[in-house]
Amino acid sequence: MSFTAPRFAPPERILMGPGPSDVPKRVLAALAAPTLGHLDPEYLKIMDEVRDFLRQVFRTKNELTMAVSGTGSAGMEACVVNLLEPGDEAGVCVNGVFGGRMKDVMERTGATVRAIEAPWGETIDPAVVAEFFAKHPTTKVFGIVHAETSTGALQPLEEISKIVHDAGALLLVDAVTSLGGVPLDVDALRIDAIYSGTQKCLSCPPGLAPVSFSAAAVAKISERKTKVQSWYLDMSMLRSYWGQERVYHHTAPINMTYALREALAIVLEEGIEARWGRHQKNHLALRAGLEAIGLKYIPKNSLATLNAIHAPEGVDEAALRRRLLAEYGIEIGAGLGPFKGKAIRIGLMGASSTKKHVMLVLAALEDILRLSGGTAAAAKAYAV
Amino acid sequence: MSFTAPRFAPPERILMGPGPSDVPKRVLAALAAPTLGHLDPEYLKIMDEVRDFLRQVFRTKNELTMAVSGTGSAGMEACVVNLLEPGDEAGVCVNGVFGGRMKDVMERTGATVRAIEAPWGETIDPAVVAEFFAKHPTTKVFGIVHAETSTGALQPLEEISKIVHDAGALLLVDAVTSLGGVPLDVDALRIDAIYSGTQKCLSCPPGLAPVSFSAAAVAKISERKTKVQSWYLDMSMLRSYWGQERVYHHTAPINMTYALREALAIVLEEGIEARWGRHQKNHLALRAGLEAIGLKYIPKNSLATLNAIHAPEGVDEAALRRRLLAEYGIEIGAGLGPFKGKAIRIGLMGASSTKKHVMLVLAALEDILRLSGGTAAAAKAYAV
Repeated sequence: MSFTAPRFAPPERILMGPGPSDVPKRVLAALAAPTLGHLDPEYLKIMDEVRDFLRQVFRTKNELTMAVSGTGSAGMEACVVNLLEPGDEAGVCVNGVFGGRMKDVMERTGATVRAIEAPWGETIDPAVVAEFFAKHPTTKVFGIVHAETSTGALQPLEEISKIVHDAGALLLVDAVTSLGGVPLDVDALRIDAIYSGTQKCLSCPPGLAPVSFSAAAVAKISERKTKVQSWYLDMSMLRSYWGQERVYHHTAPINMTYALREALAIVLEEGIEARWGRHQKNHLALRAGLEAIGLKYIPKNSLATLNAIHAPEGVDEAALRRRLLAEYGIEIGAGLGPFKGKAIRIGLMGASSTKKHVMLVLAALEDILRLSGGTAAAAKAYAV
Repeated sequence: MSFTAPRFAPPERILMGPGPSDVPKRVLAALAAPTLGHLDPEYLKIMDEVRDFLRQVFRTKNELTMAVSGTGSAGMEACVVNLLEPGDEAGVCVNGVFGGRMKDVMERTGATVRAIEAPWGETIDPAVVAEFFAKHPTTKVFGIVHAETSTGALQPLEEISKIVHDAGALLLVDAVTSLGGVPLDVDALRIDAIYSGTQKCLSCPPGLAPVSFSAAAVAKISERKTKVQSWYLDMSMLRSYWGQERVYHHTAPINMTYALREALAIVLEEGIEARWGRHQKNHLALRAGLEAIGLKYIPKNSLATLNAIHAPEGVDEAALRRRLLAEYGIEIGAGLGPFKGKAIRIGLMGASSTKKHVMLVLAALEDILRLSGGTAAAAKAYAV
C-alpha cells in the first residue's frame, strides 16, 4: 500500500488581519536554514544575538530578555505564572479579549485577582487605576494591555506606570500588537514584565514570544514560596539556558529562532523610530481613505497597527471578508466578542504596513462596497 | 546611525545527537512556504491533514489528536496538567532525566505523586508496577517514558498497560524519542495520553509537540473540578480550535505546522513499519561497529533511535565530541545526570538513520580514537 501526500502549496496571501502579517522572503529564507542542535556553539551565538536584538527593540537593558518557546499567549502565561503565586494580589484591566484572557490566566495561579473594566474600544483611565490602588494597596502585580488587538485601542501607559510603581506594585504589559509598530520604551515606562508575539509588527511567522523582565520582577520570582506552576515556562530554569550557564532545559524551536533573529535584524536596520513613523504614516492614510468612504473607527485612540472599524451598514461583513480573500487574496479580521459580525479589523503591521497595502485594500473595499473616494483621500494624506 | 546585522549562515551539521535530527530539504522548503492566517480556510485544511497524518503515525483513532504549540516538553506538560488536578493520585516511573521531569511536572499540579524508581539505564519491571497498584489502588494516572533519551533505554509497555488498566488508571506515555522510529501502536497498547516531539524520529525542526488523548482521558478532562492550570495548554479549549468548531484560541505556529505536515507525509510515504525496520537495521549495524571497537552500551534494552554508550576508557568525551563537530560536522550527545562526562549518545533518528550516517560516524570515531574494525563490522551487519 503506497501513500503519496497531496501536493503542498499554500496560496500567497496579503495578510492584513490582526496577525500574522506578511513575512518577508528574507525571514522565510532564514527559517529554512539548516537546523542546528540546541547546544551547538553556533546556535548559542544566535541566541545571544536574538537577546541583544530583542533588548534593542524592547528598549531595555533587562538581563532577563528572551524568546519563550510558544506563541504570544505562551508569553502572557510565562509572565503571569512566574510573577504570581497563591496568596498574591493582582489587578488587571479588561477592555477587550486580551485583557480578559490575562485575567483568566491570572486566576489560574491561585492569586486573588481584581479587575478594572472599561467598555470595549475604550482605554483605561489613570484615575480609575489610582482609585483601585487606594482601595487595594497590597496589590503586587498590575496587568494591562498596551495594544488591544480585539478593539484596536492604544492604551497610554505613562501615568498608569507611575501610579503602579508609587503603590509598590509591578507593571505587567501585553505588547503583542505594539512591539515594533508603535512607540514603546520598556525602560522609560518602567515596565516590569512584558510579552509580545513574533507574527504581528515583527513580521515573523508565529511560534515564539519575546519577553523581558525587570530586576524587580526577577527579584519577585526569586522570592517565590512555591514552584512556578508551569515547568515549561519556569523562568528560573529558562534563565540558566539563555544565560551564560547554558543549562539544558528544553529543545528550543531552532529554526523559528533563526526567523526571529532575521526579523529583528530587519527592524534594527530600518531603525525602530523610523519604523514607528512608517506605521503611523500608513495608518493615517488608511484612516483618511476609510473615513472618506464612510467607515467609522471603533476606538477613540486607535492603534497605528490595527484598524478596528464598524462594519458598513447593511453589509454582511463575513461575505465582505470572503470576497476580499477570494478576489484579492487579502485577509482582514472579523470582530470578536461584542463586535462579532459587527466589525472588521484591518492590520497594518510590519511588512504589511506599506503604501501598496493601504491603496490596494482601499481599492478593493471601494470595488466590493461600490463606493469611491477612499484611494484618493489616502493619496492626499500621503502627499502631506 | 545605521545598523547592518552580521551575515546569517548557520553551518550544515550532521545531526546524530539526541535530537534534533537531520531535517530533509523537503521539510525545510515546506517550513518556508508563504505564511497563512490561522483561520484561513486553506490553513484549516492543513490542520486537518496534520491530524489525519498524526493519527496514522500514532496508530490511533483518538479524536483528540493534535500538535501542541510548543516543543516536546510542552507536550509533556499538556498531558500532565490536563489529566491531573489537586486531589488526584498519580504514579510515575523514574529511570532517567525524562521520568524525573515528568515527576516534577506532575508535582506542580498539586496532585499526590508517587514514583517508582529504577537505576538509570534499566527499564521498569512490570512486577514492581503491579506491587505499586496493590499498594496505591486509587492511583488515577500512571506515567512512563517509552524511550528514555537520557539513557537510551527502550521500555516495553504491553504488560504495564494491562496492569494500569486493570487497576482502572490512565496510562500516560512519553514517546518523544520513539514516535516514528520504534514500534509503537497507541490503540493496541491502550495508551490514554501520549506526547512526542517533532525533532527526533519525525525529522522536523523542533517547535511542536504531537499529542493524543483516548476517550477515557477526554472523559477525565471533562470531569475536572478545577480549571486546567495552564490556559495555553488547556485541551478543553484547544479541542474547539482543532475540532470542527474552529474556535480561535491562540495563533498556531503556522509555518511549523507546514513542516510537520511534510515530515509526517514523508513518514507515511515510507510506511511506518518500513521505517521502524530501517531504524532497527541501522541501529544493529552501528551497534556491531561500536562493539567491534570496544565500546559498551549503557542500557540492556537499547533503543534503535538512540545509542547511549559508556565513554571510552581514558578518553575526554567532551574533547571527542568537539573533534567530531570540528572535523566532521557531526553532532553527537553528551551524557546527562549520573552519566555526565561518562557517556556519549549517538542518535539514529528519522533522516539521520541511514547507512551513510552509520558508516561515517564509525569512520570518524576510528580516526579520532585510533581504533579500527568498526566500519568493517558494520558493513558485515548490513550484509546479513
